[in-house]
Amino acid sequence: MNRNLTEPRPTFVTHLECSLTGERYEADQLHGLSRAGRPLLVRYDLEALGAAVSRETIAARATDLWRWREWLPVRRTESIVSLGEIETPLIPIPRSGGASVLVKDEGRLPTGSFKARGLVMAVAMARELGVTRIAMPTNGNAGAALAAYAARCGIETVILCPEETPDVNVREIAQQGARVWRVNGQIDECGAIVARGAAEGRWFDLSTLKEPYRIEGKKTMGLELAAQFGWDLPDAIFYPTGGGTGLIGMWKAFDELERLGWIGSKRPRMYAVQASGCAPIVRAFEAGQDHAERWEDAATVAAGIRVPRAVGDFLILRAVRASGGRALAVGDPAILKAVDDCARRDGLLLCPEGGATLAAYTQAVRDNLVDEEERVVLFNCATGLKYPMPPADQWLDKDAPIDLATL
Amino acid sequence: MNRNLTEPRPTFVTHLECSLTGERYEADQLHGLSRAGRPLLVRYDLEALGAAVSRETIAARATDLWRWREWLPVRRTESIVSLGEIETPLIPIPRSGGASVLVKDEGRLPTGSFKARGLVMAVAMARELGVTRIAMPTNGNAGAALAAYAARCGIETVILCPEETPDVNVREIAQQGARVWRVNGQIDECGAIVARGAAEGRWFDLSTLKEPYRIEGKKTMGLELAAQFGWDLPDAIFYPTGGGTGLIGMWKAFDELERLGWIGSKRPRMYAVQASGCAPIVRAFEAGQDHAERWEDAATVAAGIRVPRAVGDFLILRAVRASGGRALAVGDPAILKAVDDCARRDGLLLCPEGGATLAAYTQAVRDNLVDEEERVVLFNCATGLKYPMPPADQWLDKDAPIDLATL
Ligand SMILES: Cc1ncc(COP(=O)(O)O)c(C=O)c1O
Ligand SMILES: Cc1ncc(COP(=O)(O)O)c(C=O)c1O
Repeated sequence: MNRNLTEPRPTFVTHLECSLTGERYEADQLHGLSRAGRPLLVRYDLEALGAAVSRETIAARATDLWRWREWLPVRRTESIVSLGEIETPLIPIPRSGGASVLVKDEGRLPTGSFKARGLVMAVAMARELGVTRIAMPTNGNAGAALAAYAARCGIETVILCPEETPDVNVREIAQQGARVWRVNGQIDECGAIVARGAAEGRWFDLSTLKEPYRIEGKKTMGLELAAQFGWDLPDAIFYPTGGGTGLIGMWKAFDELERLGWIGSKRPRMYAVQASGCAPIVRAFEAGQDHAERWEDAATVAAGIRVPRAVGDFLILRAVRASGGRALAVGDPAILKAVDDCARRDGLLLCPEGGATLAAYTQAVRDNLVDEEERVVLFNCATGLKYPMPPADQWLDKDAPIDLATL
Repeated sequence: MNRNLTEPRPTFVTHLECSLTGERYEADQLHGLSRAGRPLLVRYDLEALGAAVSRETIAARATDLWRWREWLPVRRTESIVSLGEIETPLIPIPRSGGASVLVKDEGRLPTGSFKARGLVMAVAMARELGVTRIAMPTNGNAGAALAAYAARCGIETVILCPEETPDVNVREIAQQGARVWRVNGQIDECGAIVARGAAEGRWFDLSTLKEPYRIEGKKTMGLELAAQFGWDLPDAIFYPTGGGTGLIGMWKAFDELERLGWIGSKRPRMYAVQASGCAPIVRAFEAGQDHAERWEDAATVAAGIRVPRAVGDFLILRAVRASGGRALAVGDPAILKAVDDCARRDGLLLCPEGGATLAAYTQAVRDNLVDEEERVVLFNCATGLKYPMPPADQWLDKDAPIDLATL
């Protein structure tokens, strides 16, 4: 019914490239980091792609993620594993945000978060390349997406979560058939255990940016935004930044679209949003550094952005600077207030990370970084339903006299 | 960007009609039940509709719910209230279901359930007709959807939940700005309190089927399915039945589409699925009755279908019988097993009500009611993330020696 999932279509992948040194690697192979210890980026023959596909081709297809097949690394249609990766809606929040603010509601994706975009791609590639066992560190949402897609194609998964991972995440991961552990540490410490196992050949390491295909899936956020905005990008994007794959991925998407001539050279200002309790990118941004040092004693309610050290730090910083944007930190009270405001006034329940982008936007308007008339997109990366909400118990006794005027 | 939300488009509503007596009521007015105490159904000038809109018109529009504007009662574009009512995906579950089973994943809608379809319509109409205060009884999901849409347009809401409503529902309702109470009783007992307040003029009563526009929103499930199946409906539909709006709504949609000549007279067999602990429709179906008696001491893990008495009972029974389908009951253990199976084997986390449809399907295949080759749609009416999942705590100490072989 959805031909995106069944029709044979070419990919225009040519090779992979070290994001630091430019060193070239072969396509259609399993890869981790480059020899320089940096993320690999997938490269395409954009000239051939542009000759094969037009904006009209794209407009005629169903709007899901697989619409972008020619920009994705999957070679064989049979490798596709899908749980319904729909195009996520843009939702105005006029009362809590402003007249020209749209929330990209990524909570509508499979397993309730944007991690589905990256993991659907990584799992499809793992399947295509014969992987049978995968391990990954996760703050929760990525693990849930991995577990779901891997279950679907019979790949075994081992998932390690920092101890403060939200309960619902650990449970959903287990329910979707993965083997999951909580570890007394942060995500990079879980990552170290995964890396050791990978070195011993026990499993394939699917950590953020250590594996080159997740970012290609995340790239679809940028492709999708461009199509949704009629090939005229918004003025600013606020992105809750942990490992930063999404931000890097969108930046890569915009670059590829410009090379195709589908968009001009104008770019949204990219705002990398972090929590004050874990803001390594903000610190590096402000210090004018190219790399970010580890953030010690990281703590925030927004688990998804509790990432003390990001292997793609320099790529995040580079994109943010090139865009004319900034890295911004917001405190937990501002995050929780933004979540509450948006739910109460616009009926949209954000995840804490989404709340962080709204808090950062509000602050940016106050600080004259952003104009209220500018077209802004905030990323709500997961459904707010995954996160603890304040109790709301008021009782009414049907057998007693009820004063309806007090309800 | 999405012209479905901004373009002026006609509605072809002509009037409303009592579902029992056929008595006629005026359009564009607030209505409750008919004088005969039965649900009102909205009627359209389908001839004029067919002259104005073709299947090609529909195909050219964005796929969301508002694509069906001409089939919906909302008159003015400004009345539309939206949180991104996307077309929900159809997801194969080959391992836990079978090769020709698709799950319609309604958990992707705003507030995580298909209740958004009905409530977005009821709230838009309430807004159009000047309502400022609404009350409703709910098993949870309908209340969450009402709270969200009403918050968005400044309508005040009072929501009453049976005491066993899932915690997350009560919390999300409150967080989205509604006034919410738990009541020591079932949904019909909450409904009685709401009715009393409505009679006293305190609020407008938005109970299932007591208000005629929710069903028009739910109807879009049928319209959407028809479009997704290329105007050739599936062989059977399994629907978790509480108040039954969705089933009645789909049946109405199919009828309207046939009158337009967009589909033929072939209909899916409709299977109304209930829990053994609350199966009034199943009991009436088996007894050959037209109406269902109240089910005493209702109890099931599937809160959404814990509805002891449905005001539209005769409409459900009529549709099920006319379709050649059945009403089927499944026990809580089978429901939980189906949820677990589907998550573990197909990576899709169903809500308990969705689990009930999978359990009923499995049983129906075993009982030779359905053939494994038949094209079947199961409704997963809410995201599985809303429901309690088994704990999954396994600890790993990063500071101790870890035997990776045991992970
Ligand atoms: C809800 C949520 N928001 C944001 C992030 C950060 O994403 P990224 O790693 O792309 O920076 C995560 C990652 O776990 C997340 O789960
Ligand atoms: C998840 C879920 N499934 C099914 C139902 C039953 O829907 P209906 O009233 O249309 O029969 C409900 C209603 O609360 C629900 O929340």
